[in-house]
Amino acid sequence: MNKNEIRIFAPATIANISCGFDVLGLALEAVGDEMVVRKTSEKGIKITKLTGQDLPTETLQNVAGVAGLALLAASEYDGGFEIEIYKKIKAGSGIGSSAASSAGAVWAMNALLGNPFSKLELVKFAMEGERLASGVAHADNVAPALFGGFTLVRSYQPLDIINIPTPPALYATVIHPQIEVKTSDSRRILKTNISLEDGIKQWGNVGGLIAGLFTNDYDLIGRSLVDHIVEPIRSILIPGFDKVKEDALEAGALGCGISGSGPSIFALSEGEDIARSVAEAMKKVYQKIGVDNDVHVSKINTEGIKIL
Amino acid sequence: MNKNEIRIFAPATIANISCGFDVLGLALEAVGDEMVVRKTSEKGIKITKLTGQDLPTETLQNVAGVAGLALLAASEYDGGFEIEIYKKIKAGSGIGSSAASSAGAVWAMNALLGNPFSKLELVKFAMEGERLASGVAHADNVAPALFGGFTLVRSYQPLDIINIPTPPALYATVIHPQIEVKTSDSRRILKTNISLEDGIKQWGNVGGLIAGLFTNDYDLIGRSLVDHIVEPIRSILIPGFDKVKEDALEAGALGCGISGSGPSIFALSEGEDIARSVAEAMKKVYQKIGVDNDVHVSKINTEGIKIL
Repeated sequence: MNKNEIRIFAPATIANISCGFDVLGLALEAVGDEMVVRKTSEKGIKITKLTGQDLPTETLQNVAGVAGLALLAASEYDGGFEIEIYKKIKAGSGIGSSAASSAGAVWAMNALLGNPFSKLELVKFAMEGERLASGVAHADNVAPALFGGFTLVRSYQPLDIINIPTPPALYATVIHPQIEVKTSDSRRILKTNISLEDGIKQWGNVGGLIAGLFTNDYDLIGRSLVDHIVEPIRSILIPGFDKVKEDALEAGALGCGISGSGPSIFALSEGEDIARSVAEAMKKVYQKIGVDNDVHVSKINTEGIKIL
Repeated sequence: MNKNEIRIFAPATIANISCGFDVLGLALEAVGDEMVVRKTSEKGIKITKLTGQDLPTETLQNVAGVAGLALLAASEYDGGFEIEIYKKIKAGSGIGSSAASSAGAVWAMNALLGNPFSKLELVKFAMEGERLASGVAHADNVAPALFGGFTLVRSYQPLDIINIPTPPALYATVIHPQIEVKTSDSRRILKTNISLEDGIKQWGNVGGLIAGLFTNDYDLIGRSLVDHIVEPIRSILIPGFDKVKEDALEAGALGCGISGSGPSIFALSEGEDIARSVAEAMKKVYQKIGVDNDVHVSKINTEGIKIL
């Protein structure tokens, strides 16, 4: 590695953590893409390699390309970048595949330029990649990818991202049933109105979850990992969801919900042993109904993107 | 004072702290009632004295009486209690007048009985007083009165109360314009549905507020003290609200909103000096439009009810 090239790990992320729909996300340690980014004298962004997934490599069709161009447009740097993307995260799995590429690209470019941009600015650039991927420039995956740990997107206008501490024994289990749920479909079925009563429950739980994360109160985290609003609707799109959740909780998970807009399902547990039992329980459900799946057990990644 | 009698301070409280509608409250130090509670061999509860406000003293018509009966019903104690109430908090002012009496009564009775009940149980008894006062057994005033500091009512079923830390330099300013707003009216004008979009903003702000309280981040507390849902509707019932809020923020308040269901308006500030400037600014608005008012500047009371 020289100063003109960097190899990084860009983590998978869980957005829409139960009650924290659209605001709370976290970064994973055990799952993520690798990327190589290098400076070029030629202007612009080129995706020179993309393995692991069948995704477009034209700059304007690739989330890393689009996010990178947003950074370049704001930068005084006169050259360009080449990007190699080694996808390990499956596109459409609901654990921030596009966010990893978008966030990874701008993080690496920023590092190669001597870090002229803040993490908050990088989130804004990466959000342009998210806009390409889903039509909505959301921040709830790119924020944890860039900041690490748990992140709260308190507000979009202005963009305000708050890092929330991670209890040391917290582990995530994620199962990806290999069915397709499009983010756009998953967003379309949401109601535009909710009852005030459900809203109150939801922000009570968000308050409880944040308090639990600050105080390492695993039981409070578990009690707060409830979603009265989105999960009851979206879970309909995920076969086996109710049973997976039931068995995950029975296996000891603190809470369980839809990762992002699905189809992946996540659970949080206290300690790796329980997280692994939860993984087994979740896997069994999909084996029984004959749906192929990937399972990941991971510590929460408090660092975010890192150099390899 | 002997072991059969106790004199206590029962604090005023602010409920519905901006984004924390129905879930977040805090206790004040500078405003509250005094109560004397004594054991009697005669069963039941008697309100033997009530000064400062024109309120019923028949046990079943008095919130302290009703809350006290709820405790007695759950207790093995064979005697009764006499209660003297010296009201300093004006009824209907929106700073937890009924909650102070309800919570004070059960706290004192519990102390005289050797504390057989937990604070959470006391909240449940005191909620019966709130049911009498407003028709709804809400906990968002009695919880901070009993626990002190900031409290989150995460859930009602089951009742789950979380104590949130208080940043040391946080002061409250409360102005009570002497107009009548009935809690029941104030509740009736609320819409039963809200937009999902507003809900997301609200729980983003609740998350930010809780995080700010844990980290003493006054700026984040200020950014999060926003209510997109209830304040725009309820503030219509409070003449001068918009101007009071504008001038409070201009005077340096971190945030400003409706206390409880009004008509009192609260502001939170970093430091007593700013809180006093905020009080002046608020007062001027009501002087100009000719509305009598009381203003209080207070540290947050982290102790709750206490023995005098």
